[in-house]
Amino acid sequence: MTEFVVTGIPGSPYVRAPLLVLEEKGVPYRFDAIPFGAQRSPEYLRLQPFGKIPAFAHGDFAFYETQAFLRYLDRVVPQPAFTPGDARAAARMDQLIGITDDYVRGRVSGAVVFPLGLAARLGIPADQDAARAALPAAAHVLSVIAELLGDQTFLTGDTLSLADLMLVPHIDYLPSCPEGQALLMAEPNLAAWLARMQARPSMQATSWERLLETTGIKMPEPVAA
Amino acid sequence: MTEFVVTGIPGSPYVRAPLLVLEEKGVPYRFDAIPFGAQRSPEYLRLQPFGKIPAFAHGDFAFYETQAFLRYLDRVVPQPAFTPGDARAAARMDQLIGITDDYVRGRVSGAVVFPLGLAARLGIPADQDAARAALPAAAHVLSVIAELLGDQTFLTGDTLSLADLMLVPHIDYLPSCPEGQALLMAEPNLAAWLARMQARPSMQATSWERLLETTGIKMPEPVAA
Repeated sequence: MTEFVVTGIPGSPYVRAPLLVLEEKGVPYRFDAIPFGAQRSPEYLRLQPFGKIPAFAHGDFAFYETQAFLRYLDRVVPQPAFTPGDARAAARMDQLIGITDDYVRGRVSGAVVFPLGLAARLGIPADQDAARAALPAAAHVLSVIAELLGDQTFLTGDTLSLADLMLVPHIDYLPSCPEGQALLMAEPNLAAWLARMQARPSMQATSWERLLETTGIKMPEPVAA
Repeated sequence: MTEFVVTGIPGSPYVRAPLLVLEEKGVPYRFDAIPFGAQRSPEYLRLQPFGKIPAFAHGDFAFYETQAFLRYLDRVVPQPAFTPGDARAAARMDQLIGITDDYVRGRVSGAVVFPLGLAARLGIPADQDAARAALPAAAHVLSVIAELLGDQTFLTGDTLSLADLMLVPHIDYLPSCPEGQALLMAEPNLAAWLARMQARPSMQATSWERLLETTGIKMPEPVAA
């Protein structure tokens, strides 16, 4: 089988989601890790003209946009299938993928978890007061997701879907700061879902630490607290 | 067939895209138009808890996220199909849908066309200098799309796909200001694609003017130029 290639920066939720799907599919792939900042290099801009990570290739077919890659993988490697056969369950999957892109990315990861939990690790100064002011909006996003999850095992029912694999890299970072941990604990069914997801070998194979270890990419110097 | 319901504000590209797909599918639907501002009403927040438009229903199934609705429609009303059967063409469709959400929405419609071409019609003051400073970034987005379009009839080949229907409401607004018209004219293949799209009855049935006419929704008073 032709190798799948993911190019991106270890630690990004948008890099981890495709790696998770590849691990879950059990297909051969290569992760071309680049260091933080290299997404603006001329070489990388040839893969993704907006300088956003990740970018993808499969043989001579090169493209980008994480959702496009996840859906492509589910088409060209049909088993195990991560798109529900039932049209309503598939629509919930697409809705939750949309919620991840439209609200979790900005209001949870961007506004709260990155500045409070991750920025220091990357040597990036962050406005912690603004991040704390954003906590109610982040809590609202998580409450909406927790309501859609309900008492199901996975976001769209009894089986894993692309929505779980798209969302979990964001939720897995919540415990990186006390405020994020508190947000998670406020939604017990979401916390239980995260624990179930964390038990999967795919999650362990794609953690920030593991990717740094296997790729040899160096972290920037941390900033003083 | 159970009626599809779209709730939203006439004029929004994210309301027009689902209406376009419904028109192209030729299925019965109802457009529940709400006036500008009503997306923050308690009634609407029960349909879409983030106060963004549109929201959808099909029988007792209620959901939101425009991509989710477009994909759902293509599953439950399979003909005419707007998702290419070829996996690479489908990935290009998903990539272009992603480019629409991630770059066209913000860098073209949000940063340029809305403030320069539409805000006055809605009675909203806008920073026109900031919009003019954003023109190069908007031009870049359009150049990337024009390159992906190439000499094809539609964005992903010879047949219409969800990508065309997701993107065209944004591009159709470019001529609403001279700066947007110039952006469009700089990409002749994209301008020709827009002309082909504008010739479709679905585009005429879903224009801002037509929706205002058929729904009786009133526009706010224009602000003085």
